[in-house]
Amino acid sequence: MEYKSICAVRGVTANGIKEGKFGLALIRASGTAAGVFTENLARAAPIELMRKQIKAGKLEAVIANSGCANAYTGKRGYNDAVEMTEYAGSALGLEANTIGVASTGVIGRYLDLPLIRRQCAGVALNLKATPEAEDLAEKAIMTTDTKPKHALVQREGFTIGAIAKGSGMIAPNMGTMLSFIYTDAEIEAKPLKAALKLAAQRTFNRVVVDGDTSTNDIALCTATGEAGKANEKEFSVALEECCRILARQIAADGEGATKLLEVTVKGAPKESAAAKVAKVIIESPLVKTAVYGEDPNWGRVVAAAGRAGVKFDPNAVSLWISDGKNKYPLVKSGEIIADLAKAKAAMHGKEVIFILDLGAGKEEATAWGCDLTEKYVEINGRYTT
Amino acid sequence: MEYKSICAVRGVTANGIKEGKFGLALIRASGTAAGVFTENLARAAPIELMRKQIKAGKLEAVIANSGCANAYTGKRGYNDAVEMTEYAGSALGLEANTIGVASTGVIGRYLDLPLIRRQCAGVALNLKATPEAEDLAEKAIMTTDTKPKHALVQREGFTIGAIAKGSGMIAPNMGTMLSFIYTDAEIEAKPLKAALKLAAQRTFNRVVVDGDTSTNDIALCTATGEAGKANEKEFSVALEECCRILARQIAADGEGATKLLEVTVKGAPKESAAAKVAKVIIESPLVKTAVYGEDPNWGRVVAAAGRAGVKFDPNAVSLWISDGKNKYPLVKSGEIIADLAKAKAAMHGKEVIFILDLGAGKEEATAWGCDLTEKYVEINGRYTT
Repeated sequence: MEYKSICAVRGVTANGIKEGKFGLALIRASGTAAGVFTENLARAAPIELMRKQIKAGKLEAVIANSGCANAYTGKRGYNDAVEMTEYAGSALGLEANTIGVASTGVIGRYLDLPLIRRQCAGVALNLKATPEAEDLAEKAIMTTDTKPKHALVQREGFTIGAIAKGSGMIAPNMGTMLSFIYTDAEIEAKPLKAALKLAAQRTFNRVVVDGDTSTNDIALCTATGEAGKANEKEFSVALEECCRILARQIAADGEGATKLLEVTVKGAPKESAAAKVAKVIIESPLVKTAVYGEDPNWGRVVAAAGRAGVKFDPNAVSLWISDGKNKYPLVKSGEIIADLAKAKAAMHGKEVIFILDLGAGKEEATAWGCDLTEKYVEINGRYTT
Repeated sequence: MEYKSICAVRGVTANGIKEGKFGLALIRASGTAAGVFTENLARAAPIELMRKQIKAGKLEAVIANSGCANAYTGKRGYNDAVEMTEYAGSALGLEANTIGVASTGVIGRYLDLPLIRRQCAGVALNLKATPEAEDLAEKAIMTTDTKPKHALVQREGFTIGAIAKGSGMIAPNMGTMLSFIYTDAEIEAKPLKAALKLAAQRTFNRVVVDGDTSTNDIALCTATGEAGKANEKEFSVALEECCRILARQIAADGEGATKLLEVTVKGAPKESAAAKVAKVIIESPLVKTAVYGEDPNWGRVVAAAGRAGVKFDPNAVSLWISDGKNKYPLVKSGEIIADLAKAKAAMHGKEVIFILDLGAGKEEATAWGCDLTEKYVEINGRYTT
C-alpha cells in the first residue's frame, strides 16, 4: 500500500474501526490548529464544543465517530461530546480540552457512550503512521459515502494530507461533510486559520449536492511543524489545492450521482459574484437533469446564470463545455455556435465541466456538484421514518 | 358553462385558437394597466417591448401566442414583437402601441409571423364575453401545462378575473408564467401598479417549481373601470387573493408533480425574512422528495430553514403539518412531539402544508411549490436536443 493522505505527514499517527454503521477514528498530531464549521443555525453538540476548543489555536488529537450525529440532543448532547474528548484524552494521556471532536450520522439520537469508550480504547492502542492506518481512519468516518475520500499534496518543503467524508444530506441526516487536514509545515494558528477559511470558502463552500447544509459540517487543519517554516502564500495555495481535491470527491459522490458537475464562471466583476453565479448553475435542477441526460442544453445554463442576481449582458456571454480533456464552445459573445453532437459526446464521461464567461470583469470562481437522477429521488423520497 | 375568469369582468371580450403547439389569444379591454415582468437578465423580446408600452399606464388589448417564446432572437425578435402588436391593432382598429404582447414557448427561434397574422385575424372576428370565449383564450396560451389556470374573485362593487399559464421551466424553455388579469374596478394606473407589484411579490414571486425563472414571465392587469371606483385597499386584497389562486394552480402543475407544497413561515422579524425561509424550504430537494414519499421528515424542514440566512433560535421553533383540513404538530418550541403516523397520513392528499413558527417576530409569508419526483427527472433529463 501507498500513502494517500494524513499518515504521509510527519508527526501524524492514526487509526480507526468500523462496526456496522458505527465507526470511530483517532488521529494523533500535535500542533497549531484551525477549524471552519457549518453555517447552519442548527449546530450539533460537537460543533458547539469544537468552536470553544479550537479558540486556543492548538490541538493534540482528534476523535470522530460515525453512525450518530449527536445533533438535536441539547445539553446532554454537549456533555456527551465533552465525554468523547475525555475518553480520547485518557486513552492518549492528554488533556481533554486539547482534543478535537466531530460526529456524523443520524440526527436526534444520543451517542452510545459505552460503545465509543470501547472503540476509542481499542483504536488508541493501535495508532500508527502507515498507509493501512490512514485507510482505516478514513473508512471509520464514512456514512452514506460510496467511496473513501482523501488528498495528498506534496510541495517542496512540506506535505499536506487529508481524509474526508460527505455526500448529499439525507435525513435524519447522514450526509455531513467532515475533513481532517494535516500538514507538517510550521504555520502559526492565525495564518493557518486565514488560509483554511479562504480555502474552505473557495472549495467546500462551493460544493452543492442538494443545497442543504448539515448541522455537523466541520473542516479541521492541524500543522505539526515538523518540516519547518513554510512560505505562507505557498502553503495557502497548496491547502486550497488539497481542499479542492476533497471537494471534487465529495461532489462526485452526491446521492444517486452518476457524474461530477463543475462550473467555472469567469469574467465576473468580483470573485463573490462569480461564485454566486456558479452556485446557482450548480444548484439548478434543470442543469443537473440535463447533465444526467447528457443533454448539452446551453439555454438552461445561461438562464440559471441570468437569475443569480449578478449583472451582465446576455449578449456578451460565452460558454464552453468540457469533459476535462477537450473544450467545446457552445455560445460565443451571445451567439449560439454549438456543435451539439460534439457537445453531447463531451458529456458522456464521469465529469461534465461548464465554463461560462460573463464578459463583465476579470474575476472567476468554480463550484462543484453532481447530476440529479431518479436514484436521488428514490433514495430521498423512499426514506422511511 | 359558467364564467370562470376574465369574461365575467365588465368590459372584457376575448377568444383564442390552438393549432397543434401554436396558440394565440386576443383580449380586448380598454383601461388603466400595469405589468410586472421577469427579473431574469435574459429578457425575451416581447418583454422588452411591453416594458415600454406599459409606461403610459393604459392598454386597449393584449395579444399572446404560445409555441414560440421569441427569446434570444435579438433585434429581429424585437421587431417581430412590434409586428404582433400591429396585427392586433389593425384587426381591432387600434393603435399598435396600445396593445400588450406576450409570448411563451421554445427559446431561440423566430416567430412564425404569417401564422400569427392569420390566427390573429381569425380570433379578432370572434371576440366575445362568454364562458366559452375565456376558455378558448385560456387554452390558447397553454404549453406544458397539464391543466388550464384561472381565477375569479367577486367582491361587493367589483370583480377580478384572470387566466394564466405556467409550470416548471423546461428548456428550451416552455415553462413561462403568463397571467392576464382584468377588473372592472376603476383604479388609477399608479395604485394599480402598486397593488399588482405587491400581489405578485407575495404570490407569483413565491412560487418555486425548480428555481429557474423564465425569460418571458409576465403578469398584466387591466382595469376597465366599468364598475366604478373601488376602495384601493379592498381592491389590493382581492387582487392578491386572485394572484394567490393562480400561484397555487401554477405550483401544483409543476413538472412531474403529484402534490402541491405550501410553506407558511410565521414568527419572523420581517415579511421578507419569512419569505426567504419559506422559499428555501420550498426549494429544498430533500423537502420536495420527502413530500413525494409522504415522509413527515421534520428534520429536513428545520435544517432547510436553518440555512436560509435568517437568525432564529432552533430551540424556539414550532412546526405543524396540514393537509388543508387538519393540522398536526411536529415540533413544539424545539421539542419533537410528532405523531408520525398521523403526520404521514396528512401527506397522503394532493396538498401538503407546513407551518413553521420561528418564534422570532410577528411577520409571516407563504411560498408554494411541488414535490420532486422521478417523473421530473425523466422529463428534464430525457429532453432531447
